[in-house]
Amino acid sequence: MTTESQGTLNPLWSSVPETDRARILAAIDEAFDRQVHFLSDLVRCASLRGQEANVQQLVERALRQRGYAVSRQAIDPSLVGRHPAFSPVTVSYDRSWNVIADYEPSVTGGRSLILNAHVDVVPAGDPTRWQHPPFEPARQGEWLYGRGSGDMKAGLSAAIFALDAIRAAGLELTAPVQIHSVVEEEITGNGAAMALASGRVADAVLIPEPTDEKLVRANSGVIKFAITLHGTPAHPIDIMGGVSAVDAAIRLIEHLRRLEARWNEERASKLFFDDVENPAALTIGTITGGEWIASLPSSCRFEGRIGFYPGDDPHERVREFEAFVASAAAEDTLVRRCLAPVIEWVGVVHAGYTLAPGSEAEAVLTEAHANANAPDAAPLEAFVMAAYLDAAVYSVHGGMPSLVYGPIAEDIHAIDERVSLPSLRRVTKTIALFVASWCGVRPATDAFQEEAT
Amino acid sequence: MTTESQGTLNPLWSSVPETDRARILAAIDEAFDRQVHFLSDLVRCASLRGQEANVQQLVERALRQRGYAVSRQAIDPSLVGRHPAFSPVTVSYDRSWNVIADYEPSVTGGRSLILNAHVDVVPAGDPTRWQHPPFEPARQGEWLYGRGSGDMKAGLSAAIFALDAIRAAGLELTAPVQIHSVVEEEITGNGAAMALASGRVADAVLIPEPTDEKLVRANSGVIKFAITLHGTPAHPIDIMGGVSAVDAAIRLIEHLRRLEARWNEERASKLFFDDVENPAALTIGTITGGEWIASLPSSCRFEGRIGFYPGDDPHERVREFEAFVASAAAEDTLVRRCLAPVIEWVGVVHAGYTLAPGSEAEAVLTEAHANANAPDAAPLEAFVMAAYLDAAVYSVHGGMPSLVYGPIAEDIHAIDERVSLPSLRRVTKTIALFVASWCGVRPATDAFQEEAT
Repeated sequence: MTTESQGTLNPLWSSVPETDRARILAAIDEAFDRQVHFLSDLVRCASLRGQEANVQQLVERALRQRGYAVSRQAIDPSLVGRHPAFSPVTVSYDRSWNVIADYEPSVTGGRSLILNAHVDVVPAGDPTRWQHPPFEPARQGEWLYGRGSGDMKAGLSAAIFALDAIRAAGLELTAPVQIHSVVEEEITGNGAAMALASGRVADAVLIPEPTDEKLVRANSGVIKFAITLHGTPAHPIDIMGGVSAVDAAIRLIEHLRRLEARWNEERASKLFFDDVENPAALTIGTITGGEWIASLPSSCRFEGRIGFYPGDDPHERVREFEAFVASAAAEDTLVRRCLAPVIEWVGVVHAGYTLAPGSEAEAVLTEAHANANAPDAAPLEAFVMAAYLDAAVYSVHGGMPSLVYGPIAEDIHAIDERVSLPSLRRVTKTIALFVASWCGVRPATDAFQEEAT
Repeated sequence: MTTESQGTLNPLWSSVPETDRARILAAIDEAFDRQVHFLSDLVRCASLRGQEANVQQLVERALRQRGYAVSRQAIDPSLVGRHPAFSPVTVSYDRSWNVIADYEPSVTGGRSLILNAHVDVVPAGDPTRWQHPPFEPARQGEWLYGRGSGDMKAGLSAAIFALDAIRAAGLELTAPVQIHSVVEEEITGNGAAMALASGRVADAVLIPEPTDEKLVRANSGVIKFAITLHGTPAHPIDIMGGVSAVDAAIRLIEHLRRLEARWNEERASKLFFDDVENPAALTIGTITGGEWIASLPSSCRFEGRIGFYPGDDPHERVREFEAFVASAAAEDTLVRRCLAPVIEWVGVVHAGYTLAPGSEAEAVLTEAHANANAPDAAPLEAFVMAAYLDAAVYSVHGGMPSLVYGPIAEDIHAIDERVSLPSLRRVTKTIALFVASWCGVRPATDAFQEEAT
């Protein structure tokens, strides 16, 4: 419940006093084993697309236990095409929903904040290639292994335990804080889009994606496609009479490499992207073709993604992609013998964003990063992440300063994904100090009562 | 039951008398609507690999009704590696068995015969691309449409109805005839291998594969492989750190085209193959790779087949193939970053065969072909079929003259597979005259009795 702000405590935008900071950092250390335990519980949920219910129930329970106002938020597919944040929907969202938690301050002073994290994870691939089964979190040295450990359940744990530490330090925040535990980041971004479209905004957004304790300066726009080729199946004795859809798909993929090169060349004129090695990063993620070992394949479908630059209209990039495919198909002696390639937009179609240098949010994070890691702190570095991030939704369509900053992780989307636990501890501390400073803190009412007794 | 031969009726190797021939041909015409009906029943059974039980039950019933001694024959996987006719087994044969029918003459004179046909069919692909649903046989003009109509259920109907016509003409055969209704032709040839390994031999084999009313002079040896590549999955932001198994598979397929070209070049010195356009006919039949649209694929598997020449040791070709793949993988800058390619032999590993010109079997078939189609008959042509045929099993390992000769069909292994019904009628007639002449005929005992009453 929000009460009127009290002048004496407002604004609290300055740095948090050293003694409060020390208590917050100590509280994080004190709770860190529990945080890793909670993170392990999250990793144990194989929250692949469409299977996020288990982990969201666990998140919901954890947030309710902390006293937040918690709600489930279904994604409304009818918003696609009506709200620009949404990407195409090709599956049912009946079993996928966001969990939203609200903290409402008793005394309002500082700046409001959204802490966002996605709970969906990508498939693990062959589990036998993992050192530990991918959904059985395993601690090994300084690392916690498991699919989703880095991307980005560690970040979600950091957000929740950072808020815990502030409370445990005897402080309460003086601005509204929302936790958006969203789905669909790995494919469409429609979880974050739904949160935004439901009117949820704040003075800043922090998303603890695994960024090696750096700040994302910009990301790429991304479109995700599926292309199906229909050839002419045939018996091997009639190879000349048939058209292999697999062979045609291979040709078309090779042509798409030219589009990737062309889009990469544009980087020379793009702010922040001129030294990114492969900003387009055409990735063919899956391929499936053919029906029988000894028949020319009748069809072949491949899925992938390609990136571009902040400021680019993703729908213009879609049109450019479609025109390129049509042209390449018409010119290729094999592909043109297929039916016209069928392009489906099966994932995110979204612009990139830039975090304009010089924002207050960045300044506060920079200070928190330094204070959390003092005296050994390296200065906060910024870098470009040439991938889709939910921060783009909040930034492009909500105009919010969006900070993407999180722990060191290795092999995300790969085998043996793992997160550095010392890094997670440091990041949790940075987030806690950032939240305290951004939102403002005051001695907690219940804490006063405890001290009074 | 075999009785002793009776000198007066033995040998009956000469041409069948004109009057008998006329009665046989008339009987085929008379029964042809029923034959097409029976063929339609066969096509209606979607006898894909492992799903042949329905059609075999139907065949078994039809053969029992005709009075043959009929048995089911399971494939014994333990013979793989012990009997050279067998190819690798990678599936269960619990639901796949041969049906074998025996006709034993009451009077023995002529030459024995095996009529072989396979009942397994290849997948239909996208059924919506068919004019008629693939397993709903449809007559349209002179064609019967349906998966398996040409390859080779029409041939099976021809074998059965050819024997029917001889009996309907008041004749009985004077040599043992076996019908081998086998499984697994489209993948391993282990159905025919089992029939042979069980000791079933004859003086000749006739297999009515769809050959456009021509005779197969030779076929190619064939090996069927699956290759799996294991790359290093990664997030698109770390493309340089990952190795896409799909991209590597595409490279390896391109290398295999060089092997295909090399094997094709050998045709210049190969009898009967020097003017075959693409005897190796490398076919990539299926491909499956990747786990997620926006991850570098961790694995990719493709299946295919490649051919070579009669006289070549298929196991030598296997070694050559394996050495080529290992060498190409080691030399390619991308493929060598994968784990070593895993090659599985998942289908036929078999030599090709040649039907030596000048055999009595060919002479008898040539005469039958001419007589069945008189006065319009074109001379029987022979051609090379650069594909695996079960005839290779009987020829290479059984030393039997193996005649592959059957109806006109179009788009086998493709969309809208269909068989020409006028051609099927002609072929049924040719087969009936061939059988009558090869096995010999005498007036049937029961026919005599009918005439006597």
